Amino acid sequence: MRKDVVLAPGPTQVPPQILAASAKPTIHHRTPQFEAIFADVSKRLQEVFQTQSPVITFAASGTGAMESAVVNLLSPGDKAITVEAGKFGERWGELCKAHGVKNVAITCEYGDVVEAAQVAEALKANPDAKAVFTTLSETSTGVLSPIEQIAALTSKTDAILVVDGISGLGADVLRTDAWGVDVAISGSQKALMLPPGLAFVSINDRAQARMAESTCAKYYFSWAKALKTLAENTTAFTPAVNMIYALQASLDMILGEGMEEVWARHARLASALRAAAKAMDLELFAKAPANNVTAIRVPDRVEGGKIPKIMRDKHGITIAGGQGTMKGQIFRIAALGWCNTFDVTTALSALELTLSELGYPVEHGKAVGAALDVLAGRVGAAV
Amino acid sequence: MRKDVVLAPGPTQVPPQILAASAKPTIHHRTPQFEAIFADVSKRLQEVFQTQSPVITFAASGTGAMESAVVNLLSPGDKAITVEAGKFGERWGELCKAHGVKNVAITCEYGDVVEAAQVAEALKANPDAKAVFTTLSETSTGVLSPIEQIAALTSKTDAILVVDGISGLGADVLRTDAWGVDVAISGSQKALMLPPGLAFVSINDRAQARMAESTCAKYYFSWAKALKTLAENTTAFTPAVNMIYALQASLDMILGEGMEEVWARHARLASALRAAAKAMDLELFAKAPANNVTAIRVPDRVEGGKIPKIMRDKHGITIAGGQGTMKGQIFRIAALGWCNTFDVTTALSALELTLSELGYPVEHGKAVGAALDVLAGRVGAAV
Repeated sequence: MRKDVVLAPGPTQVPPQILAASAKPTIHHRTPQFEAIFADVSKRLQEVFQTQSPVITFAASGTGAMESAVVNLLSPGDKAITVEAGKFGERWGELCKAHGVKNVAITCEYGDVVEAAQVAEALKANPDAKAVFTTLSETSTGVLSPIEQIAALTSKTDAILVVDGISGLGADVLRTDAWGVDVAISGSQKALMLPPGLAFVSINDRAQARMAESTCAKYYFSWAKALKTLAENTTAFTPAVNMIYALQASLDMILGEGMEEVWARHARLASALRAAAKAMDLELFAKAPANNVTAIRVPDRVEGGKIPKIMRDKHGITIAGGQGTMKGQIFRIAALGWCNTFDVTTALSALELTLSELGYPVEHGKAVGAALDVLAGRVGAAV
Repeated sequence: MRKDVVLAPGPTQVPPQILAASAKPTIHHRTPQFEAIFADVSKRLQEVFQTQSPVITFAASGTGAMESAVVNLLSPGDKAITVEAGKFGERWGELCKAHGVKNVAITCEYGDVVEAAQVAEALKANPDAKAVFTTLSETSTGVLSPIEQIAALTSKTDAILVVDGISGLGADVLRTDAWGVDVAISGSQKALMLPPGLAFVSINDRAQARMAESTCAKYYFSWAKALKTLAENTTAFTPAVNMIYALQASLDMILGEGMEEVWARHARLASALRAAAKAMDLELFAKAPANNVTAIRVPDRVEGGKIPKIMRDKHGITIAGGQGTMKGQIFRIAALGWCNTFDVTTALSALELTLSELGYPVEHGKAVGAALDVLAGRVGAAV
């Protein structure tokens, strides 16, 4: 009896009640019935995004929402700063290049963090930079960006701060308005516990003021069109109706738990995963670990590519390997979205079996025990 | 006991077995399991699209796929011909303008058809036009375009023929390869009987050859990225996994019936709707009616805006009113996708009650009877 569990940094597990909501009969989107639903989710997304600004919803993957930020805020020839600490930070650079935006990339070794001081230097050296593109939790390395400190810098300049929170928002703390983040982006298949297919963007007044100046070509991803229709409780183009039903069910669960507790739960579970890795003498890859995904170095003499493969094919547990040059060097476990203590113990039990099989010395139960110690409050949380 | 039925030109009714398929547990997209599913649907979509060329799938509404055609085939400053017989044809003009493409618009009165001879003239007058953008079935007017004749013209030129079949493909005959259509586009929430959220594009060799020349800025909607990953049975960006499950179930139903019969069924149902309209002394709006939607003029002395409203609010039957200047002048009934004889009789029964209520003289059962006569083969099909 296979019982598959997705513990990858997205897609994540979707609760049955959300899947059931997504299977309700499709209604027409130009009706008072749909408009009431769309008004409800758009309003409640503001709480998840921790903002009073409008949150627009696209039928798209997260990358579409990232592209929307570039094409609505900038013009060809403009300059922007891109924080590129991993594969998803690098996507900002690719998006800028695709649209003729000159980007000043701030990079670091994979696993390391781009510090706010580096952003401060870049802003000083490039006072004409019109935007700073960052990543809340860099999914490819498991690193958390110091968004609060970066926002403290950009708030004092004319540069618009855009945060890709596709995998992080809802798992790692992001106080959009309180910190001064101008634009926050997320996707459906992460902390929101939905299938993939929706992407979201919150846009504050500063960012909205910038839209009028932008000459990048756009249509489907036009914020002006989306904001105009949002004010009328509808969308510019046909919305993914059944995904919006699912979003309603997700918001019931998330806001029922409360954002502070949602963040605290992700913090506890990630802390337990980190303690478990250490108990197995495994090294964490991220210098500043995020809570949405835990990246662990493959130990010496273990064939790294086999870890996610055995976890999935033999045990039914989907985790992620490394991307790009990190392939075979790391593996990533995400207690992201609809997860609790027993998702962590499941992941660690499967990991213990898998590493044993690959010849790594494992004392069965040790990692699980270390996690339970943290989750039961018997020891302090790991770093 | 309300029993809502959507008979609008999209979204359309989604069969329960497709909704159930969409509610299966979300799996990770970078797995052999998902790749097998994606390979299967991508292969079988070719039969629906009547092409041997690859069919790419975007997580987006249909407009996103339309935009992809403009940005992958053309460059700013290029010239294109846009066939604009209604709101959706006009969208091609808007998309060209958004991307700096000079478009020569061929227009006509709403309800009328742009003839192939007009396209021939435009091609002659604009030998530098790099593409011709058309609409299979113009949803706003119910008019069918003469795509076969237009394709016979474009095939002899260097202009790429793009057909927006978002609402028409699968309902009105489109023989993509046989006719010489270069690019065909569709969406999920029409004849494919799915919720909204997926858009599809088939791209033949001629169109693929043109991609390399295009300098329009693009990223999420890049055909090159989509084709490269499709060849590896995956997508460039996270696919809408659960919608792909639903698509599998849809293709089982559609290809189980067979494309020729799917088209014939839509033709029969639309023919019955047209006969019923005439039996009620109502006038068809489209000079060359499509089978995906039937547009009917509001009779004199009836308040047009009330027809869809009473149909929906009192009887639970969602049809469409008119868009733009056609608002209040027409109403549109679509026996599109998962529809049979009794969807037509339901629509007509509700319409008889509605028009009675609005003071139009109605002999109850007359429109239903006229439809049944056609569907039973007792009289020849109406125009």
